[in-house]
Amino acid sequence: MKSDNSLHGISRRGLISGLVLLPALSGLSLSAIAQTQTTQDGSLGSWNEGPAKQAIIDFVRSATDQANSKFVPPEQRIATFDQDGTLWVEHPIYSQVVYCLDRVPPLVEQNPKLKDVEPFKTILSGNREAIAKLSLHDLEKVLVATLTGISVDEFDAEVKKWLTTAKDGRWKRPYTDLVYQPMIEVMQYLRGNGFKTYIVTGGGQDFVRVYSEHVYGIPPEQVVGTAAGTKFGYQKDGTPFLTKEPKLLLNDDNAGKPEGIHLMIGRRPRAAFGNSDGDREMLEYTGAGDGARLMMLVLHDDAQREYAYGPAQGLPETKVGAFSQALFDEAKEKSWTIVSMKNDWKRVFAFVEKR
Amino acid sequence: MKSDNSLHGISRRGLISGLVLLPALSGLSLSAIAQTQTTQDGSLGSWNEGPAKQAIIDFVRSATDQANSKFVPPEQRIATFDQDGTLWVEHPIYSQVVYCLDRVPPLVEQNPKLKDVEPFKTILSGNREAIAKLSLHDLEKVLVATLTGISVDEFDAEVKKWLTTAKDGRWKRPYTDLVYQPMIEVMQYLRGNGFKTYIVTGGGQDFVRVYSEHVYGIPPEQVVGTAAGTKFGYQKDGTPFLTKEPKLLLNDDNAGKPEGIHLMIGRRPRAAFGNSDGDREMLEYTGAGDGARLMMLVLHDDAQREYAYGPAQGLPETKVGAFSQALFDEAKEKSWTIVSMKNDWKRVFAFVEKR
Repeated sequence: MKSDNSLHGISRRGLISGLVLLPALSGLSLSAIAQTQTTQDGSLGSWNEGPAKQAIIDFVRSATDQANSKFVPPEQRIATFDQDGTLWVEHPIYSQVVYCLDRVPPLVEQNPKLKDVEPFKTILSGNREAIAKLSLHDLEKVLVATLTGISVDEFDAEVKKWLTTAKDGRWKRPYTDLVYQPMIEVMQYLRGNGFKTYIVTGGGQDFVRVYSEHVYGIPPEQVVGTAAGTKFGYQKDGTPFLTKEPKLLLNDDNAGKPEGIHLMIGRRPRAAFGNSDGDREMLEYTGAGDGARLMMLVLHDDAQREYAYGPAQGLPETKVGAFSQALFDEAKEKSWTIVSMKNDWKRVFAFVEKR
Repeated sequence: MKSDNSLHGISRRGLISGLVLLPALSGLSLSAIAQTQTTQDGSLGSWNEGPAKQAIIDFVRSATDQANSKFVPPEQRIATFDQDGTLWVEHPIYSQVVYCLDRVPPLVEQNPKLKDVEPFKTILSGNREAIAKLSLHDLEKVLVATLTGISVDEFDAEVKKWLTTAKDGRWKRPYTDLVYQPMIEVMQYLRGNGFKTYIVTGGGQDFVRVYSEHVYGIPPEQVVGTAAGTKFGYQKDGTPFLTKEPKLLLNDDNAGKPEGIHLMIGRRPRAAFGNSDGDREMLEYTGAGDGARLMMLVLHDDAQREYAYGPAQGLPETKVGAFSQALFDEAKEKSWTIVSMKNDWKRVFAFVEKR
């Protein structure tokens, strides 16, 4: 019975959608019909109709159509995504920085001497204003203390544990819930069309790799991030292990993004997605080649559903992900696509009902 | 006609192999039958029956059988291969070093001052004995001069050009012909069973990436090698490009191999293949985990079909890929598999007829 029913259902659906499409068919090419179907089946269902959604669809159509002069052979289908502010919320503070701050109390418990040493003393005080005023140099001390000196397996376990308990202050949800549903759909849509999707983040490579597969469907080996070295050694019983070292190998931001892409991927991407001046060089590098190309920048202009910050387009400046007017102008000049969170996204998160 | 013929052929082959197998079926589990078929259909056709071939088959069987306690989930199926001496000939001199030496004359033409500067002067002399005596420090100068200071695209084009013209002295064939057919089959067999295959080489990452896809079926992004940094910049017309810098990021040999694996892959491999003391740490790291594991070392003991060198097992010591007796003993103690080129391989190269 079930089998009969579902077969019948498919057949009826097929018929109905065929009838609905009929009036639109005249003058459309076959690939346009296929595209209309893709849109209708909801693969980009959280996107409003508009130039941003259309740019994604047009790019995929050119890249995958062998008859198109911009066709991209399957092995060259590489798409890179910045993470903070492009795939998940970065405001008011990067989640990884929260992780590092949260690691300070257990660290001091292990090493009580740190209790009276700055910047650990200030962090332990819980005084948010004072913490916000910590210098970059102080922050670096915290990063080194909390991200290095332990084995890669211990670090992995710590981050996993933290992700299950830590919650964002505004939505009271795990940070991994705060991913942008429209971007998840773009990644799925690209993968469905033969693209390998990569994260290329200024955040810590080891940190993002812990949850990338679960949250984004991107395996650890497709996460490129700021990376410190490790040191191979042996435990007393002879078991080999790797310790995270305070030695920066790749600062994966700004010019470091194309450099990191060359180091870790070795191919120029065909599509790149960012949201800040730190992504500029990655988008420029992606754009400097022939064939189909897609360069997109997410503009945080939605204070109600997420945040609004810039200073591009007169949005207020913040400590995270500056999107300057200069980058906005460069994007316009080079025909990159600006994604307005407010106008282009039907919804921001999976957990929010559609409007 | 063609279509009818081939359909008929398949059907007859299926029938015949079924009849041949019948007497062997009693007492064999279904997976054993499947395995017998795998062996018969030639997926490891250049391997002689023996413990090495059996170890590969047993490993894949455990890793892919969900009922097996050593089952490996598909996303964790990572296999890493050293290149020089494991996948292709490294004796008497690494191919990449030949490339660098071959690049010296055009380099001097561009910069005539180098003509009287060592070690370029000696290399230009063509005196093989003198060239062989160059110090490591001299060699480093040649590597820096020939591998850095050019754009990654120029380097890619140079290597491609060289590969079509350069020939090995003994076989008078392009270096990319000198790959070991049995290892190509292992890589294909692993990929056919859901493994991602990686090269993890002490050689230059950018060098190997030029031909890895064509020669091994391994895309550039799955090549981990000794890597120097690049520098992002702009041409006069504003086009962004990357220049290869003389700044070592990863020395992918010895302890650098597991460190490079963590940096570039972020997972511990389930299988690792090497042929020298430089692969020891990679094999140890691969072996230090639960579930199905395979660690293999290729022993060059076939002076007739390839080369015989060691000094493990009393084989003569050479400048390339030392396989020490200590490593041989460690392999025995840890039940790693030693592959004897002489005994385990039916043939070494694709271009040599089967014996």
